[in-house]
Amino acid sequence: MIVTENKEMICENLKRSSDGELCFADMPLSPLAEKYGTPLYLYDEARVRHNCRVYLDAVREGFGEDARVMYASKAASFKQLYRIIKEEGLGVDVVSCGEIYTAHLAGFPLQNAYFHSNNKTDDDIDFAISHGVGCFVVDNAEELFAIDKIAAKHGIRQKIMLRITPGIDPHTYAAVATGKVDSKFGSAIETGQAKAITSLALTFDNLELTGFHCHVGSQIFDAEVYLATSKVMLGFVNDMERELGFICRDLDIGGGLGVRYIESQPTLDIKATVLKVGEEMKKEVARLGIALPRISLEPGRSIVADAGLTLYTVGTVKRIPGYKTYVSVDGGMTDNPRFALYGSPYTILPVFDDESIPRESCSVVGRCCESGDILQENVPMPTDIERGDLLACLTTGAYHYSMASNYNRIPRPPVVMLKDGESYVAVKRESLEDIVGLDV
Amino acid sequence: MIVTENKEMICENLKRSSDGELCFADMPLSPLAEKYGTPLYLYDEARVRHNCRVYLDAVREGFGEDARVMYASKAASFKQLYRIIKEEGLGVDVVSCGEIYTAHLAGFPLQNAYFHSNNKTDDDIDFAISHGVGCFVVDNAEELFAIDKIAAKHGIRQKIMLRITPGIDPHTYAAVATGKVDSKFGSAIETGQAKAITSLALTFDNLELTGFHCHVGSQIFDAEVYLATSKVMLGFVNDMERELGFICRDLDIGGGLGVRYIESQPTLDIKATVLKVGEEMKKEVARLGIALPRISLEPGRSIVADAGLTLYTVGTVKRIPGYKTYVSVDGGMTDNPRFALYGSPYTILPVFDDESIPRESCSVVGRCCESGDILQENVPMPTDIERGDLLACLTTGAYHYSMASNYNRIPRPPVVMLKDGESYVAVKRESLEDIVGLDV
Repeated sequence: MIVTENKEMICENLKRSSDGELCFADMPLSPLAEKYGTPLYLYDEARVRHNCRVYLDAVREGFGEDARVMYASKAASFKQLYRIIKEEGLGVDVVSCGEIYTAHLAGFPLQNAYFHSNNKTDDDIDFAISHGVGCFVVDNAEELFAIDKIAAKHGIRQKIMLRITPGIDPHTYAAVATGKVDSKFGSAIETGQAKAITSLALTFDNLELTGFHCHVGSQIFDAEVYLATSKVMLGFVNDMERELGFICRDLDIGGGLGVRYIESQPTLDIKATVLKVGEEMKKEVARLGIALPRISLEPGRSIVADAGLTLYTVGTVKRIPGYKTYVSVDGGMTDNPRFALYGSPYTILPVFDDESIPRESCSVVGRCCESGDILQENVPMPTDIERGDLLACLTTGAYHYSMASNYNRIPRPPVVMLKDGESYVAVKRESLEDIVGLDV
Repeated sequence: MIVTENKEMICENLKRSSDGELCFADMPLSPLAEKYGTPLYLYDEARVRHNCRVYLDAVREGFGEDARVMYASKAASFKQLYRIIKEEGLGVDVVSCGEIYTAHLAGFPLQNAYFHSNNKTDDDIDFAISHGVGCFVVDNAEELFAIDKIAAKHGIRQKIMLRITPGIDPHTYAAVATGKVDSKFGSAIETGQAKAITSLALTFDNLELTGFHCHVGSQIFDAEVYLATSKVMLGFVNDMERELGFICRDLDIGGGLGVRYIESQPTLDIKATVLKVGEEMKKEVARLGIALPRISLEPGRSIVADAGLTLYTVGTVKRIPGYKTYVSVDGGMTDNPRFALYGSPYTILPVFDDESIPRESCSVVGRCCESGDILQENVPMPTDIERGDLLACLTTGAYHYSMASNYNRIPRPPVVMLKDGESYVAVKRESLEDIVGLDV
C-alpha cells in the first residue's frame, strides 16, 4: 500500500482557524452557510484541478504521453464540472443521455468521451452518435448489433471498445465489485465469452474495435489489484493478437482508486500507484512481446470526493439515557444516501469547535421520516452541540449530488464552487416549484 | 395473523389475458408501454380508492365514527394523489414543506393534515402554520419552543400531538423499526422522557396538546404488534391523566400494515386487523377507566403499494455459464432503490408469457453504472426472454416514485393513472432539459 503520512485533517484543503472555525479551500464555512443556506454542497475548484493534474502527470509519466484520464462523471455530473475537466485536458466517461447532454451543453468535446452502461437502449445509442461521442464501451452482443445498425443509419464507422471482466475480486464491498466474473457488466475472460465477443465485434462493417476496457471495483487502496488486473488484461490482449490477429490499440484499466473518508483510512499516493502499475505493465508487454496499447484510466471518486464538503444545520439533539444521542440535521439520505445504501464511513465535524469541550458519541441523522436516514453513527460530538449549530460532512464530492433524491419531497441542495476565496453557484438550489413542476 | 386466502396473482387487480398478456386494472400493459414509453409507473386509481375505503370503513367500525385515517403521503406524493385522498375523505400525514406545498396546490384541506418529521426547521414550522396545517406531531423539546414562538407570531394557538416511542420491537427489519426506544423519533416512555415532554408541552401559551402519536415500524403482518402498542399507549394515556391531569383526546397508533410483494407473503386482512385492535382497545380503556380517545391510523404503503406497477423494457440478457443470467432493463435503482437499500423482495413478471416456455433463474438488474443496481435476484424468467420484451415489477406504488433519483443523470419516469379502462398522466416524464435545468 502506497500512502503518504496521515495529516491531522482528512484532506489538505481543510484547516481550523485560530478561533476554532473550520475552513475549506481557505474559506471559513459559516459565511457560506449564511449566504447560501443549508444543506449546502461545496466544491473546492482548485482541489478538482489539482486531482486532475496529479492523474494526468502520473499517467503520462507512467504509461507515455498518449495516455488518457477519463473522468468518470457519474461521480458528479453538472455543467461547470465538465468545463473544468475540459480545461484540465481530461476526457470523460459518460453513462447516459443525461450525462452526454450535460457535457454537450457545457461545450465538452464529446470525441473525448467513452460511453458506458450495461444497457444502452437504441435511443441512447442514437443520441450518443448524434452528439459525436468518441467511443462506445460496449457491454454485450445486443449492443454490437444495435450500434452497428444505428451507425450505418448515420453513415459513420463508430469506434468501440469492449468491456471485459478480468475476474479480479478487489476485496471491497460486493455492491461495487464489478470486475468479478459474476457481474452484470462485460464479458468474462474465464468463460470464453470475452474472446467470443471480440471475435463477433470484428465482423461488423460500421464498428471499429480499438481495444478493451475493464473496471474491477471501487475504494481500492492496494496497487496489487491494478497490477493483477493489468496482467490479466495484457494476457488477454496478447491472446487476441495471437488467436484473432486483433491488435489492441486502447486499453482502459478503469478507476476505483481509494479515497480517504475517515482517519483510519490511508491517503493513497495516486502518482506512486500509477507509476508502479506503469512499470509493471511495461515489463509485462516486453515479456509477452507485444506493444503497450494506449492506456486510459477512469477515476471518478478520486477526482472529486475530497473536493467536496456538505454543510448542515443541527435541528435537535436527543439524548436517550442508557442508549444513544441523536443529532438531527436538515439534510440526510436525500442528499447523501451512501450510509443508507452501503454503511459508508464519513467524518463529520462541528464547524465551530472548542477542543476543551468534552465529546460524546452521537448518531448524526437526517430529517427524513425513515429510521435508516442516518448520515453516520458513533460520531464524537462536543456535548454542547445544539439547534442552530453548523456541521460539516467531509469528502462528499463524489456520489452525493449525483445520487440525491427528492424523497419526502425535500428539495436538493445547491452546488457552490469555491475558488480563490470567492464562491459561485454551479447548480441552483431546487425550489418547491421545481419539485411540483411535473405534477399535473 | 389474519390473512385472506392466497390468490394466483399477488393482488386482485392483476390478471393475464387469454393471449398471455398481463393486465393491470383491467388494461393490457403493452399498449400503455407503447403510448407512454418505459420505464413507466402505473397506478390503478380504483385500487387506491378501494384501499382508502377499506381503511375508513374499518376504523369507523372498529374505533367509532370520529376515527380518522391519515394517508402517510411520503409513500407517494403528487398532486393527483392528494386529490383522490381528499375525495375519499382521508386526512394526510405530511413530512416536509414539499409535501405540504403539493397538497396545498392540489386543494387538499390542510386542517386535515398531521405534520411529522424528527427535525422541523423554523422555516418548515412557519411554512406549515402559514398553510394552515391542522396538527403538528411534535418530535422533541426544541420543536415545542420553536412552534410556540412561531405560532405566537402568527397569532394562533397551534394544535399539537407528541410523538411517543412505546418501545415495541415489531420484528421487522431494523431500518424501518421506529418504535423501539433507541430511535431518532419521539420520546420514550421507558426513560421517563415521554412524561417529561408531555409535562413541558402543557406549559406553552400558543400550543394546544391534543394527544399522542406513535409508529412502531413497517411491513407488519402481525396484529399482536398493534395490540401490544395500543396497550402501552393507553397505559401512557392513563398515566398522564392520573399524574398530570392531561386528558388525551387524540391517539394515533401509526401505520405500517404489511403489503404482499411476493407469493410467500400473506395478504393481510386490513379490516379484520383493525377491528381486532379496536375490540382490544375498548376492553383496555374500560379496564383502565378512561375514555377512548379519537383514534387515527396512518397507513401509507398499504394504501398505494398494490395500486402501483412499473413497466420496463429488457435491453440485454447475459448468460454467464456456471454463474448466473442477468436480465438488464431500462430502469433500476433510480426508479426503485428499495432492493439496493433494503434487499426488498419483488415479483417481476414478463408482460407476455407462455407458460410452456421453460424458466431459468435470473437477476433482473438496472441500467446504472453500479453493481448494486439490482431490482431483484432469483427471478424465474422464460428462457426466450430478449431485448425489447416488456417486464412488469408489481406492487411498486409505495416508495418508488417518491424515492426516485437522477443518479447517472437518468430522468425519472412519468406517473400514469389508470381509471375505467382509460389512462391519464399524473406526473409528466422528466426530460433532459429538466435534468440540467438548475445547472449554471
